[in-house]
Amino acid sequence: MAGYPKGAQPQDFIKGWPHPELLSRAELRAALTESFHKGLEMSEETLNYGDKANGAYMLGHPRFLQGLAKFLEQQYQAPTDPKTLMSTIGASMGTDLCFRIYGKPGDICVFEEPTYFLAFTMARNSFLELKGVPIMEDGMDLDALDKVCTESEGKVKFVYTVPIHHNPTGYSMSNEKRVRLMQLAKKHKFLVIADEAYQLLNFGKTDMKPLFYHDDKEDPRVFSIGTFSKLIGPGTKVGWVQAHTSLLKPLTDIGFIDSGNNPVIFSSMNLLHFVESGALAKHIDAVSKDLGERCQLICRKLREVGLEVYEPKGGYFVWVKSKGKKTGKSGEATAIKKDKFHDYMRLCFCWLTREQIEEGIEYLRP
Amino acid sequence: MAGYPKGAQPQDFIKGWPHPELLSRAELRAALTESFHKGLEMSEETLNYGDKANGAYMLGHPRFLQGLAKFLEQQYQAPTDPKTLMSTIGASMGTDLCFRIYGKPGDICVFEEPTYFLAFTMARNSFLELKGVPIMEDGMDLDALDKVCTESEGKVKFVYTVPIHHNPTGYSMSNEKRVRLMQLAKKHKFLVIADEAYQLLNFGKTDMKPLFYHDDKEDPRVFSIGTFSKLIGPGTKVGWVQAHTSLLKPLTDIGFIDSGNNPVIFSSMNLLHFVESGALAKHIDAVSKDLGERCQLICRKLREVGLEVYEPKGGYFVWVKSKGKKTGKSGEATAIKKDKFHDYMRLCFCWLTREQIEEGIEYLRP
Repeated sequence: MAGYPKGAQPQDFIKGWPHPELLSRAELRAALTESFHKGLEMSEETLNYGDKANGAYMLGHPRFLQGLAKFLEQQYQAPTDPKTLMSTIGASMGTDLCFRIYGKPGDICVFEEPTYFLAFTMARNSFLELKGVPIMEDGMDLDALDKVCTESEGKVKFVYTVPIHHNPTGYSMSNEKRVRLMQLAKKHKFLVIADEAYQLLNFGKTDMKPLFYHDDKEDPRVFSIGTFSKLIGPGTKVGWVQAHTSLLKPLTDIGFIDSGNNPVIFSSMNLLHFVESGALAKHIDAVSKDLGERCQLICRKLREVGLEVYEPKGGYFVWVKSKGKKTGKSGEATAIKKDKFHDYMRLCFCWLTREQIEEGIEYLRP
Repeated sequence: MAGYPKGAQPQDFIKGWPHPELLSRAELRAALTESFHKGLEMSEETLNYGDKANGAYMLGHPRFLQGLAKFLEQQYQAPTDPKTLMSTIGASMGTDLCFRIYGKPGDICVFEEPTYFLAFTMARNSFLELKGVPIMEDGMDLDALDKVCTESEGKVKFVYTVPIHHNPTGYSMSNEKRVRLMQLAKKHKFLVIADEAYQLLNFGKTDMKPLFYHDDKEDPRVFSIGTFSKLIGPGTKVGWVQAHTSLLKPLTDIGFIDSGNNPVIFSSMNLLHFVESGALAKHIDAVSKDLGERCQLICRKLREVGLEVYEPKGGYFVWVKSKGKKTGKSGEATAIKKDKFHDYMRLCFCWLTREQIEEGIEYLRP
């Protein structure tokens, strides 16, 4: 690699993937194996559509939803009713379902800009119109949101937000803004899709609960979208939507679920023991510690080469304004019209080894 | 149950579910346990989005697609290229994906009437217009289809058919009609969604291959939709779409897959050994034999009480015109406008015990 300073090397910061060692830990394999064994002992019901007492498990297997509720209750330190949970094949399926059931062509969805760029496709799949408002270090610009809603005269049906460990910026929405967002939701009658894929991936203590816990049971407007994908591994494809029952139940009316049933009966029940035994909580601690160290490393190294960075308290990414050389994913795609953030880079610190992180950031030194 | 003749009892013929004994067979549990073990040994790649060599596994894990292709090749006795396969979370997901990617609001989808009633919802989810043509013992009425296409002046975008062991009638489309259907597809430029959920559930030898094998590689128009749901169990939720590559690849552009990746990487790879070892083929033999006997029983009993029935050569259902008393699922929902088949009953012979089948049909005796 002639021409680069010693130890400088372009690296793949694009992939938002966990590094393979996290997925092949002996403790993880042993715990999953045990869990699958126990799952298969229930194959009589986990391989069917449902059972006589409960009918078809449209929202998910009742025992999995109970186990998940208990797990989330411990993680969130907040009461969690299994009746507010639906199992899904991951976070994206949850977002897609909300758009499909509650949206109609021409409805507006407002996004933070920059945001998780693949959410745009999901909104477009439901023929929605997309509008953007800026994001700030304490979350979405709510004055701008209020203005967009007022100007759009009732056409804003959804606000899509990544309120914790935001992709790509790493910001989290403050509790004050969460309260105000829900006031705006009531005022303008929109629904909030809170993509909380990183909610349980924290590098330290957090006092932030899912947006669901800021919702009003009497006038519910929030879908809190969760997943095991960032915790166990993206292949897992078991996630959930948390919402008050009157909002949640219509999600099962989508044709492919009405026909095929809840999509993760078998796979979620095979994970039940892993969740209930405490093995998942332990695994999350190990993953968070490992990724937190990588996050510290990349931020230290970025500052060392003279680049500014907001150090996130969880998640997968840092968001950096380039001073010339670029790497990682271009920020261009993170704006609706691709008209902003050309100079920004989204860098994932989870895929590379520590050495590769150092080499890849050294390469950026102006 | 006073008032009924001895041994007559209303029974649940509505549920299109397999009976629990099929799902708890010791051989099945042992084989799945072994397969899961082997799957977890590959957790490094099966829990991730993909690998360095292949990138993200949008169409499915390459090794699973290879194993599936080899399995289907043996089952169909026809060459099967892994490049024509995409893994899905079951048949309904496949149908839904085809409608979403290739349909636009206002396009027409033509259905056989009666048909699998939940397919209507999937078409409506994509804002399609629905039209019906009759079904005959050798399959869809193709003269009627030709007429509908001509009258609709190019607006027919899809034909949805259950060409084998049709739900609810049990009919299969003859090979002659399969050839002509594809001629019509070219003439009127529509796509064919062949819901072949029962393709591998045969009560005897069959010479019918999936509609994919009647498609023209140079002008491809068929999606053959398959699934393990009727073979291993509905909870499994691993299926596939078979189509020529140029038709198949755009299915991964849907937002929730573009974002979350192929939804069954982990669960399909955990089944790979079960598929490759021959255990699945053996299991299918056992399931087909068991359900075939139940099918014979219900048909014999129906004739005994004076009801006419077409005896299907596979699948889950018989379709019976009532002579007064009714049971099972009313035929009403199987027509687009619910304007036909009020007197018909769809009876599932898979959920009940042999004794319950006899009692339930005895109850229908006029």
